[in-house]
Amino acid sequence: MSRIVTVGAAQLGPIARNDTRSQVVSRLIALLTQASQHGCDLVVFPELALTTFFPRWYFEDQAEIDQFFEREMPGPETRPLFEAARELGIGFYLGYAELAEEEGRTRHFNTSILVDKTGAIVGKYRKIHLPGHAEHEPWRQFQHLEKRYFETGNLGFPVFRAFGGIIGMAICNDRRWPETYRVMGLQGVEMVLIGYNTPVHNPPAPEHDNLSHFHNQLVMQSGAYQNGSWVVGVGKAGNEEGVMQIGNSIIVAPSGEIVGACSTLGDELAVARCDLDLTQSYKSTTFNFARHREPQAYGLIVERKGAVLPPE
Amino acid sequence: MSRIVTVGAAQLGPIARNDTRSQVVSRLIALLTQASQHGCDLVVFPELALTTFFPRWYFEDQAEIDQFFEREMPGPETRPLFEAARELGIGFYLGYAELAEEEGRTRHFNTSILVDKTGAIVGKYRKIHLPGHAEHEPWRQFQHLEKRYFETGNLGFPVFRAFGGIIGMAICNDRRWPETYRVMGLQGVEMVLIGYNTPVHNPPAPEHDNLSHFHNQLVMQSGAYQNGSWVVGVGKAGNEEGVMQIGNSIIVAPSGEIVGACSTLGDELAVARCDLDLTQSYKSTTFNFARHREPQAYGLIVERKGAVLPPE
Repeated sequence: MSRIVTVGAAQLGPIARNDTRSQVVSRLIALLTQASQHGCDLVVFPELALTTFFPRWYFEDQAEIDQFFEREMPGPETRPLFEAARELGIGFYLGYAELAEEEGRTRHFNTSILVDKTGAIVGKYRKIHLPGHAEHEPWRQFQHLEKRYFETGNLGFPVFRAFGGIIGMAICNDRRWPETYRVMGLQGVEMVLIGYNTPVHNPPAPEHDNLSHFHNQLVMQSGAYQNGSWVVGVGKAGNEEGVMQIGNSIIVAPSGEIVGACSTLGDELAVARCDLDLTQSYKSTTFNFARHREPQAYGLIVERKGAVLPPE
Repeated sequence: MSRIVTVGAAQLGPIARNDTRSQVVSRLIALLTQASQHGCDLVVFPELALTTFFPRWYFEDQAEIDQFFEREMPGPETRPLFEAARELGIGFYLGYAELAEEEGRTRHFNTSILVDKTGAIVGKYRKIHLPGHAEHEPWRQFQHLEKRYFETGNLGFPVFRAFGGIIGMAICNDRRWPETYRVMGLQGVEMVLIGYNTPVHNPPAPEHDNLSHFHNQLVMQSGAYQNGSWVVGVGKAGNEEGVMQIGNSIIVAPSGEIVGACSTLGDELAVARCDLDLTQSYKSTTFNFARHREPQAYGLIVERKGAVLPPE
């Protein structure tokens, strides 16, 4: 038996601050067209794929910040992407900054959507693990103000029946946290789609910069294996406004093996035929949760946010 | 600043079914003596390090099973190991089958202890994630009857202040579950000690046999990185009573990098100088739990044991 979903990991090179949405959308459509030629069912774009990674700058003027956000999806500039998807019969994952009117106020989320082959939005996720900081820290070579510009996602880690399987989403820093994959694994997820913008240089811990690819792969490979799920991770790559992004987009099998990867720092498509039935040989044996998990021993994971050290 | 703990990963080659405890203890003491010559503070032995891995056989006679268990620790045959530790001034982690009289009945656990440089037991852990099966499955080339011969550990995942740091323990299959490391990470663990007996061949999923080393390393490397902790994993190696054990003993830094490893399938000592202060550059940045974890989104991890799929 097999349930093949052919996936394109559509890595993006840099997006300049003054690039228009329409310029970016034309690049996304070019990648979607390449994917169509390779028989893809589903294309994964990065986090905040419509603009430059703006949390690297400190802005005081909210109107200036809001320029990077989408008020509707699709909107006039993004509609051609949805139309191309429908015409080509390819679904996609897209990350973008979402401005929502909810609970009587304007809210900002770092969001991804899952779009099916008819161009319809069938799933939405709002980033839960916002990295970085909330206040301006001028000592940094560049800022990472996600905790300032976004609210914590309020949709949990949902999964969606789509593309013949059970699909989940995460965004960037979410992928470093095993809880992300596990909460979806407990809903039977078969493929987790993850977009990211990861600078090579992390100002608070430059001693790890040489390990950025290793860490990127390690967390997605273990998340895949430990939940018996495919993981597709797609990044922004190259020198974006003076900040190097890792790229290092990969497609990971439920075994944890990398079966597809980008090797440039620009717009690039990696393709893999992903058999969702390969998840079963993990989900029914080593990671048969119903047989082997021991939740009575996991209480601290939800009872505690930070670490509490034992008495001296 | 640095807090160096020099660790010896003391891999064991096969132990035959009819080897005596005294024969095995003399091998452990030989490794402890080697470790002393290399300036080790702490030696890690495998799971069930005093006997062959007996859950590979189906026994009906409880007395036959109980021969593999220790009724006291130290007992007459294991006391020389504790005395050697005290004389050499080296602590150790030891896995063994524990027979305990508790709650008015005889109980069986798969246990590890942490012994300090004076030969005193300073910590005990009882294995929580018991793999395998509870009933005889004659179709298997060999059995894995841990769910039959042991009760689930009832001590949680405790950590201990010892060797100048915060030390945790896990056993074999525990290492494949990210919850294991996280529960200890939430108590500030700086080094997790793990003994194992892992056959190369997994009868229910032989299609993964070629990945046994990869998976062994992947889970310990990610557990280390995602909690900013050292991980020391030590296995039984080679052909034990007809079943190949992976060995593949490794010492993993908080970066997730492997900094020490055994390369044979016999008794072998790998040594690494482990600076506990290296944990801080992860625990205070990317994995600063108090800043970045989002427990309100992790509920399913404790609410659910098995996966529940979304409606069709």
